[in-house]
Amino acid sequence: MSLDRLGVVGAGLIGTSIGLAARRGGGEAPVLVDADPGRAAAAAALGAGRAGDWADLAGCDHVVLAVAPAATASVAAQVVQIALDATLSDVASVKSRLVAEVETVLSDDGPRFCGGHPIAGRERHGPGAAQPELFENAVWVVTPTERTGAGARADALALAELCGARPLVLSPEEHDRVLALVSHAPQLLASVLAGELPDAGRHAAVLAGSGFRDVTRLADSEADLWADITTANAAELAPVLERMAARIAALAAAVGAGDADGVRDAVRAGHRGRALLPAKARNPRPQWARVGVVLADRPGELARLLAAAGEAGVNVEDLAIEHAPEHPVGFVDLEVAPESVPVLLEALTAAGWAAHRTN
Amino acid sequence: MSLDRLGVVGAGLIGTSIGLAARRGGGEAPVLVDADPGRAAAAAALGAGRAGDWADLAGCDHVVLAVAPAATASVAAQVVQIALDATLSDVASVKSRLVAEVETVLSDDGPRFCGGHPIAGRERHGPGAAQPELFENAVWVVTPTERTGAGARADALALAELCGARPLVLSPEEHDRVLALVSHAPQLLASVLAGELPDAGRHAAVLAGSGFRDVTRLADSEADLWADITTANAAELAPVLERMAARIAALAAAVGAGDADGVRDAVRAGHRGRALLPAKARNPRPQWARVGVVLADRPGELARLLAAAGEAGVNVEDLAIEHAPEHPVGFVDLEVAPESVPVLLEALTAAGWAAHRTN
Repeated sequence: MSLDRLGVVGAGLIGTSIGLAARRGGGEAPVLVDADPGRAAAAAALGAGRAGDWADLAGCDHVVLAVAPAATASVAAQVVQIALDATLSDVASVKSRLVAEVETVLSDDGPRFCGGHPIAGRERHGPGAAQPELFENAVWVVTPTERTGAGARADALALAELCGARPLVLSPEEHDRVLALVSHAPQLLASVLAGELPDAGRHAAVLAGSGFRDVTRLADSEADLWADITTANAAELAPVLERMAARIAALAAAVGAGDADGVRDAVRAGHRGRALLPAKARNPRPQWARVGVVLADRPGELARLLAAAGEAGVNVEDLAIEHAPEHPVGFVDLEVAPESVPVLLEALTAAGWAAHRTN
Repeated sequence: MSLDRLGVVGAGLIGTSIGLAARRGGGEAPVLVDADPGRAAAAAALGAGRAGDWADLAGCDHVVLAVAPAATASVAAQVVQIALDATLSDVASVKSRLVAEVETVLSDDGPRFCGGHPIAGRERHGPGAAQPELFENAVWVVTPTERTGAGARADALALAELCGARPLVLSPEEHDRVLALVSHAPQLLASVLAGELPDAGRHAAVLAGSGFRDVTRLADSEADLWADITTANAAELAPVLERMAARIAALAAAVGAGDADGVRDAVRAGHRGRALLPAKARNPRPQWARVGVVLADRPGELARLLAAAGEAGVNVEDLAIEHAPEHPVGFVDLEVAPESVPVLLEALTAAGWAAHRTN
């Protein structure tokens, strides 16, 4: 068993990132297969491997199923018919029910499969959101069962390491119990809170600051995917949500009674929980300098701005547009290398823009 | 009334940032007073004004009370004895009970006070964290009552504008009702969720990813401050928490019953709420189609892309750049009207870009 010839089914965020991560170590380009050939082509153009069709999986040693949880079992059944010697793993964020389903569908080929779940992701999806270092230092849970073959287990662990992650072996049930609390419940809490906004009057969205954005960021995630995940993990998730509802109701009572000690205790319990989180060492990003530019809200302004930056030889690494509601002007933050700031400011000011460094 | 001679009591993050913001427009240096003279001196050294003592507030036109909510009323009572002609405003994040308390304490001087709350902040505290553009484009709520004098109201509005913020007049009650949802409830939800971690077994903290970190980030905030704020806003906050507890309990029931439609509805309600937030480039508006384009990471590429879109007659509504560090190519999501997608894809493909629809 080995990962020399890797196949990836599903050229979304995770599948494309796996391809990009695998390519960092050199070796053969992974075969990328997607139901939408355009996505596989985009992933290939980004450097994640070579776009292929199902038949191209034939020579693979290991095939990663990076598709939606609901599609995993049927895709696994297809893959074992083509990649006759390959081991298989998946990336789905629910394991207990899914792993059992895959093993049932695969029947005698069941030992070729080992469940996996990289604990990494972004709210954005699709190949364009992929990053080669998405899994760097992340935990990648591997969930062998008593049916899992030694080769499949070894390959699933090796894949995690190839992608720069730290593998952690758990039973599918242990995985699901923990993820209910640290992933599935937060997801739905974010949705519930964000879902209050439409009925909260016209000022609520305007007054929502960065704290509200942080707490609700997960609420941008796909509805179908999360309906799928949360119901697949119903047995573990429902009790967690019930417990949280009870805690919040108790806190409502404490607040209503002016019980400052009760609130203080809840906040301090949160401090103890936060203190358990590993120090953040993941996804170190270069510290770009930010230059803010006031921009007239008319067609072509942004293109003109970026053209001016390009003519000044400045590479814009990232940008964020702020549209202030009911304001005739917008505000753009350009992120650039710190050493580019003086030349950029000079060029933009000379061209008539109001620009200043904002970090 | 005017802001020519400005006083600031409390040289923390907010007070110092107000001084720095006021100084950008030139004019007289604000008088900075703090119970800790070292903090006032630090703020002065940063350029926020000149450090003074209480007596130096005597000649002020307007004094901003940038102290803890619990100290605001007693500081207001001191200030009106010294700054005999000044109007006053504050920056506290609860208003209804506090404004009433200040007006009661000030008695006949009540009309000289107008409540305020700039919706801006940072995780760091103290004068060293201050920024002159902290309030730039932020909303600054101003909460006059029927007792508030015209001069105090005008000065509170002018202060917000002087600092680059967008003033929004609300009653203290309206302010508190909205903030209960967009600030105080998220704060406590974050604490409740984080508070589950210590009892969740040894793997939970290890498996908590960036989503859990985002949702619980606010849980790091100070216990005493939040016990103070939440109980001061009990009348508005308790019903919000009760409603959220009920929604979460209902969602627990839906999950337990395998009701995928119920979960999907909750997630979609969250999408509608998030869509109301003033646009960040990262949070694409639902009515726009997104086209992803793989882009070489060199100066001028983005401008060339936008020019090509413009030549094809396509108006780019917004865009987001994905930039993987140390990756030779980037990825741009262009947001356009859905009907523009075919012509855009054709134009970009003809010009040699790999482009596909991403939503």
